[in-house]
Amino acid sequence: MKKLNFKIILQMMGFLLIFNGLFMLLSVIVSLYYDDGASQGILYAGLLSMAVGGLFQFATKGFKTQIKKREGYLVVTLGWIIMSLSGALPYIFTGAIPSFTNAFFETMSGYTTTGASILNDIESMPKSILFWRSTTHWIGGMGIIVLAIAILPLLGIGGMQLFSAEAPGPSADKLHPRITDTAKRLWLIYFSLTVAEAILLKVAGMGVFDAVNHAMCTLSTGGFSTKNASVAYWNNQPVIQYIIIIFMFLAGTNFVLSYYAFKGKFKKVFYDEELKIYFIIIVLLTTISAILIYYFAGVSKTPTEIQAIAHPMVNGLAESSFRHALFQVIAVITTTGFVSADFSIWTPFLSVIFFFLMFIGASAGSTAGGVKIVRHIIMLKNGFLEFKRTLHPNAIIPVRYNGRAVTRGIVFNIMAFFILYLVVFAIGASVFALLGLDIITAAGASASSLGNVGPAFGDLSPVNNYDSLPSFGKWWSAFLMLLGRLELFTVLIVLTPYFWRNN
Amino acid sequence: MKKLNFKIILQMMGFLLIFNGLFMLLSVIVSLYYDDGASQGILYAGLLSMAVGGLFQFATKGFKTQIKKREGYLVVTLGWIIMSLSGALPYIFTGAIPSFTNAFFETMSGYTTTGASILNDIESMPKSILFWRSTTHWIGGMGIIVLAIAILPLLGIGGMQLFSAEAPGPSADKLHPRITDTAKRLWLIYFSLTVAEAILLKVAGMGVFDAVNHAMCTLSTGGFSTKNASVAYWNNQPVIQYIIIIFMFLAGTNFVLSYYAFKGKFKKVFYDEELKIYFIIIVLLTTISAILIYYFAGVSKTPTEIQAIAHPMVNGLAESSFRHALFQVIAVITTTGFVSADFSIWTPFLSVIFFFLMFIGASAGSTAGGVKIVRHIIMLKNGFLEFKRTLHPNAIIPVRYNGRAVTRGIVFNIMAFFILYLVVFAIGASVFALLGLDIITAAGASASSLGNVGPAFGDLSPVNNYDSLPSFGKWWSAFLMLLGRLELFTVLIVLTPYFWRNN
Repeated sequence: MKKLNFKIILQMMGFLLIFNGLFMLLSVIVSLYYDDGASQGILYAGLLSMAVGGLFQFATKGFKTQIKKREGYLVVTLGWIIMSLSGALPYIFTGAIPSFTNAFFETMSGYTTTGASILNDIESMPKSILFWRSTTHWIGGMGIIVLAIAILPLLGIGGMQLFSAEAPGPSADKLHPRITDTAKRLWLIYFSLTVAEAILLKVAGMGVFDAVNHAMCTLSTGGFSTKNASVAYWNNQPVIQYIIIIFMFLAGTNFVLSYYAFKGKFKKVFYDEELKIYFIIIVLLTTISAILIYYFAGVSKTPTEIQAIAHPMVNGLAESSFRHALFQVIAVITTTGFVSADFSIWTPFLSVIFFFLMFIGASAGSTAGGVKIVRHIIMLKNGFLEFKRTLHPNAIIPVRYNGRAVTRGIVFNIMAFFILYLVVFAIGASVFALLGLDIITAAGASASSLGNVGPAFGDLSPVNNYDSLPSFGKWWSAFLMLLGRLELFTVLIVLTPYFWRNN
Repeated sequence: MKKLNFKIILQMMGFLLIFNGLFMLLSVIVSLYYDDGASQGILYAGLLSMAVGGLFQFATKGFKTQIKKREGYLVVTLGWIIMSLSGALPYIFTGAIPSFTNAFFETMSGYTTTGASILNDIESMPKSILFWRSTTHWIGGMGIIVLAIAILPLLGIGGMQLFSAEAPGPSADKLHPRITDTAKRLWLIYFSLTVAEAILLKVAGMGVFDAVNHAMCTLSTGGFSTKNASVAYWNNQPVIQYIIIIFMFLAGTNFVLSYYAFKGKFKKVFYDEELKIYFIIIVLLTTISAILIYYFAGVSKTPTEIQAIAHPMVNGLAESSFRHALFQVIAVITTTGFVSADFSIWTPFLSVIFFFLMFIGASAGSTAGGVKIVRHIIMLKNGFLEFKRTLHPNAIIPVRYNGRAVTRGIVFNIMAFFILYLVVFAIGASVFALLGLDIITAAGASASSLGNVGPAFGDLSPVNNYDSLPSFGKWWSAFLMLLGRLELFTVLIVLTPYFWRNN
């Protein structure tokens, strides 16, 4: 293998730092507007990021080359880490989150669009800091769109080659400038949807600040909220919750499909297998959950906080059960992690269902984390075909997806990805358990971190937060978030000795 | 596809029923010897089985043909079911287990060598009934040896083709008479090891009856005990427990390796990768468990029954910790499920470890259930190679096992098996949760039934039994046992409509 070109990597990191610093300036403006006293700290953070970024750029000035595949893995992995290091500065410099561990956790949770938080009193934070928090989600979402649709297929990660042909982009070994065009178009959709949601939320009765923040955290499937009770704060305003439900759903679809929809190519949208299954899963699980909540949860009126919040039934128990079921199912499948009620106390059966839901994830090419529905579709189809193949060992029976035959190599890739995902989950849960977490909390923390969901079970249930984790647990959770967000291989490949040979 | 030949299937079922009936006569002798009053009931059960079997044989008299692959799946699946139906008769006819559900559960648990029991007071049962219970394990173990080594590879199940060359048997599409030779040799080893363990247990101080029963239940990796406290009954006699540990270990190795060892081909044994990894996992997990028990469990002297049983430390805490750690690790990895202490209360970390251990399983070609170590080896190797392949998408890099390249088709098969295993586990756990079991009990019941282990967690922990399951839960558990025992595909393929086409 050729030697890695570190110059190009440094150049990219410089670009990301400047980009991040510029976004921080937006929060400075928010701070000045609300006069919340955090402007100076955020400004310093922004200037420092830009200064270091500028230095990197200066050191590699005039250097022009194309990124090779192997450098791609490193750029993506280091990029997410350096963004999180720089993004933690506003928390630290303003004193909003003094501990470096906590600040890094919150930022990694932001950029990976996980939405797990260590903040015990969100509402006491300066508004600009909350806006920065939402911004990390929103930037992370932008990063994921281009990553999922343009970069990962080229890097040959976990079967994502399936999509190299779908994105109106390149398919060569070198990352092509046309990626920029694709990215711009998709970002425009991302931006428009965010604006649309913010306006709708405002119209429905949310304050401007909350509306903008929640829109940013919805489209990125992040899940940070500006309220301690998350979206349960608006349990008296069902319209607000339905708006969020719709946009969470959209954020969990493949952005290329939105692009087709904007272009009027509805046939491509309606015949998409992943969209169909995504929809069916939601309908099915919402129905089951709603019925169970209606019959059983109506009984268990324990005086826990979230139950109290979830139970002002504006339009009666039926609507309330339906809405909370739908909200939680979509919040978990899209890995957004907003909360309108505590799913972890909804009968043992629903606990199991929501636990497994964390392993499903929404569509590939969306901002959602997790395994992704397309992978499940292909694995299940392959599973059924395996029976046919067992009966006819010599016949060649390919898996078909969206009308095309999927190569055996891609199916292989996807199965290896899923198995690796479960191995990482198992190791993740074991480490949490070693830190003293009980078995449910440990398993939930691992599944939720890896799937970029946010809320989990037990001590990390939707009404709790991640502050109770021991310090090492926070780093471990942040590592799992990064692994999950970058589809495992991108990070793990950089950790193999083989990757570094010939350097 | 050709039509299924039902005559040959009927003939095989007839053979199995007669065989089963003859084994029941052994229990009649035991009953007469101990004069426990159960002889008549068992005799009727045996005669009925033989009568029906004889009828089947008579109906297909003189019929001679070879079993085809497709009939193979049906013979194996129906065989296990018909054995369980007939094997439940002694319990019902003697009134020892009056409920049909319970009797069927106990018998399926026997033939699948699971060892989960619905008996609340084992020691109050007639001795002959306990002997019959152990006999079901022992027959199940015999069945598994020939199944795993000779039949499954031919049926192309879950990568087991790997072993078609290893067993000194056939590899054509039709089941060859040489299978009988292979089986006879392996059964001789199975029989000899059982006798050896029984003698050693007797010499170490166990009564003859207990010694014979425990030997039968060890070699089959079953786990039924003649004592309510299982092997914890002998916590004052460490030598007895060490003997059982050694034979559980042996029962979890590939019987073909024992065959090589008897023939003096030790090189083949020592270089076997699966044996090496099996050994390493046990050493590693025993060390971790022993240290944790030593430091933490010494503290938590809760007055629960099993703790009380586990704590007469004959040789001090260090030896006791080591022994109980080793015993439980081997009992779970070999899916025997004997109990000398309650692993479910050994710190949260060990709960997680023992839970995942249920998914490992011992060696292929042993009597153990579960996924099997060889599959994990190949999946992990393939996982690492997938990184290399991602960096060099055009290179062909095969997985190597025991010095030979494993075909891509077999790796594919194994990954599909593992994913299917986890899907079945997930569905299994969801159904248990739907019946009202809490999340830990539900997940444990599914993993333990499917892996043919026996003890699980929560309400089904090593100090409890399966009697508390609702009636449907017992049938579901029995179904999972059968699925797991027959490596999923064998049963599931029979349930596909495709299998029945052209009939």
